[in-house]
Amino acid sequence: MRITVLGAGYMGSAMATVAMKRGHDVRLWGTWLDDDLLDAVERGDVHPRLRLKLDGMRLLRAPKLDEALQGAELVLHCVNSDGAVPVMTKARTFLPDVPILSVTKGFLEGSKGKMVRIDQALAETAGRPLRFVHAAGPAKAIEIARSVLTWMVFAGSDARACSDALGGDHLHVELSDDLAGAEMCSALKNAYATGLGIWDGLVGKDAHNARAACFTQAIVEMRRLVTAGGGREATVVGAAGVGDLHVTAAAGRNRAFGERIGKGEPARDVAATMLAAGELTEGYAAIQTAWRFAREHNVSDLPFLRALNAVVWEGAQVAPTIAALRLG
Amino acid sequence: MRITVLGAGYMGSAMATVAMKRGHDVRLWGTWLDDDLLDAVERGDVHPRLRLKLDGMRLLRAPKLDEALQGAELVLHCVNSDGAVPVMTKARTFLPDVPILSVTKGFLEGSKGKMVRIDQALAETAGRPLRFVHAAGPAKAIEIARSVLTWMVFAGSDARACSDALGGDHLHVELSDDLAGAEMCSALKNAYATGLGIWDGLVGKDAHNARAACFTQAIVEMRRLVTAGGGREATVVGAAGVGDLHVTAAAGRNRAFGERIGKGEPARDVAATMLAAGELTEGYAAIQTAWRFAREHNVSDLPFLRALNAVVWEGAQVAPTIAALRLG
Repeated sequence: MRITVLGAGYMGSAMATVAMKRGHDVRLWGTWLDDDLLDAVERGDVHPRLRLKLDGMRLLRAPKLDEALQGAELVLHCVNSDGAVPVMTKARTFLPDVPILSVTKGFLEGSKGKMVRIDQALAETAGRPLRFVHAAGPAKAIEIARSVLTWMVFAGSDARACSDALGGDHLHVELSDDLAGAEMCSALKNAYATGLGIWDGLVGKDAHNARAACFTQAIVEMRRLVTAGGGREATVVGAAGVGDLHVTAAAGRNRAFGERIGKGEPARDVAATMLAAGELTEGYAAIQTAWRFAREHNVSDLPFLRALNAVVWEGAQVAPTIAALRLG
Repeated sequence: MRITVLGAGYMGSAMATVAMKRGHDVRLWGTWLDDDLLDAVERGDVHPRLRLKLDGMRLLRAPKLDEALQGAELVLHCVNSDGAVPVMTKARTFLPDVPILSVTKGFLEGSKGKMVRIDQALAETAGRPLRFVHAAGPAKAIEIARSVLTWMVFAGSDARACSDALGGDHLHVELSDDLAGAEMCSALKNAYATGLGIWDGLVGKDAHNARAACFTQAIVEMRRLVTAGGGREATVVGAAGVGDLHVTAAAGRNRAFGERIGKGEPARDVAATMLAAGELTEGYAAIQTAWRFAREHNVSDLPFLRALNAVVWEGAQVAPTIAALRLG
């Protein structure tokens, strides 16, 4: 099967590795920001983020998007949320009508000026319906590539075709038709993982109860947000929600971002220094876009997200804001 | 209000501290295993487990159970599962007909030779219905006593009276009528937290995906077990299940027990050395009793619990058993 992977960062290179192991004909296309990554791979070095060698796949640079997509039977969309619309704008004329399995997470501003899901924003950009499948669940890229046991949820009408192509062995794929719920879980968990990191920074190792209370609160609020956005609660309490929040809050950039905020650093400064170090902190934007999404959908009972938005985007003092948190 | 706390260990002394802060007349009764704890408190030292001073409450030794219970308006049952029936056997004749808020977790063998919940076993022992309320949720004793934000679920007909007496400030109490579900969550989470600890020992820090997959799997299996036992799924996906599993798998004796098993030590040896060090590992017995409960209730689709029972109680090799785990 010919599989084209769009985006050569962490997840793109990891999913390309999985596709290679399944015996597919793999093309890995890098965006205009990925040249240094592909340079390293072409030199025979390890991929600079994944820290693994990528063998046997064809590498294509940004200008060769049409060539990358030609004849593709499955597209893996691994561009980050900032790049999703620009890449689709370039790809729309030669994107084949095949399933698109996407790991991209976040909300984007749609044509009506309101927050929409990635699949909705990309269908607007493409000017036609897309065969979109979202890949959710607790899946750190480096561990997928290293064949660590991983549970992913593929959600969308073409989920089975994607699972047939990529699932098996260490990659357990659960099929779902709840595209809305799965996508929202992936976006929201970055916001809430940042919030759990704040506890780590604020109190440290002696606040297990508070952290677990806020983990529970995050799931409560994600259920409210997901149902308001047309998704299902069952998706939130499975791998896409509970599982992914668990892994994101245990390790990674969003948790680290929150930890520094919990220690008193201004969110804007932390985000800037992490961005300068090449560590994109999706939680920073995710808190703002989730809060906008909540207000646009009249979801009012979200004390944790409200507190996060106040601390991260409105300059509220972290300790008193978090201490005043109302649970339930 | 006169409140009698049965059991002077971690949770008993912590809940007694909370009751004191609420201005109640508190009696802390120690079992025949708690003398050294009460000795230290009487000398004015910190409580040896809680590491805090206990001031203002009346301390009573094991032979004074009748005196301890006389005039009590609320009983806090903080005896461990091994001591629950022996203590109730002694208490039954002078136990007043008041709400009993219990933190005791586990399954016990009932009079018909099958696994039953603690409240069922104690009602059998008492020979009459008890006004039993179970306290579930992510609540490490030392943090409750130190006023860390904590979310507990009080489940049972008399939950509100218990909440009125103890809730407020840092202790957020959610009321529930799902006594069965809350009790089973408290028991089961010790078994599954041991399982998550096994991953920590087996692979270490590079298996976040696998650990999160198994966290999700634990919630799936707890939902199956709780519904089979007459409880509700909503209880599992809230503070009593998801929240408590989060805290138990993050820190504590059950996780540590699992980690050592994951590193290849035989479970029986680990349990023996931990017991000798005064560190009761509830997860050890919890795996066996949960597995018995599952078979007695014909709950068959529990691959994680099956694997745990095989490793911990049947001598199965840890790495291949866990590697072969089927998810979903």
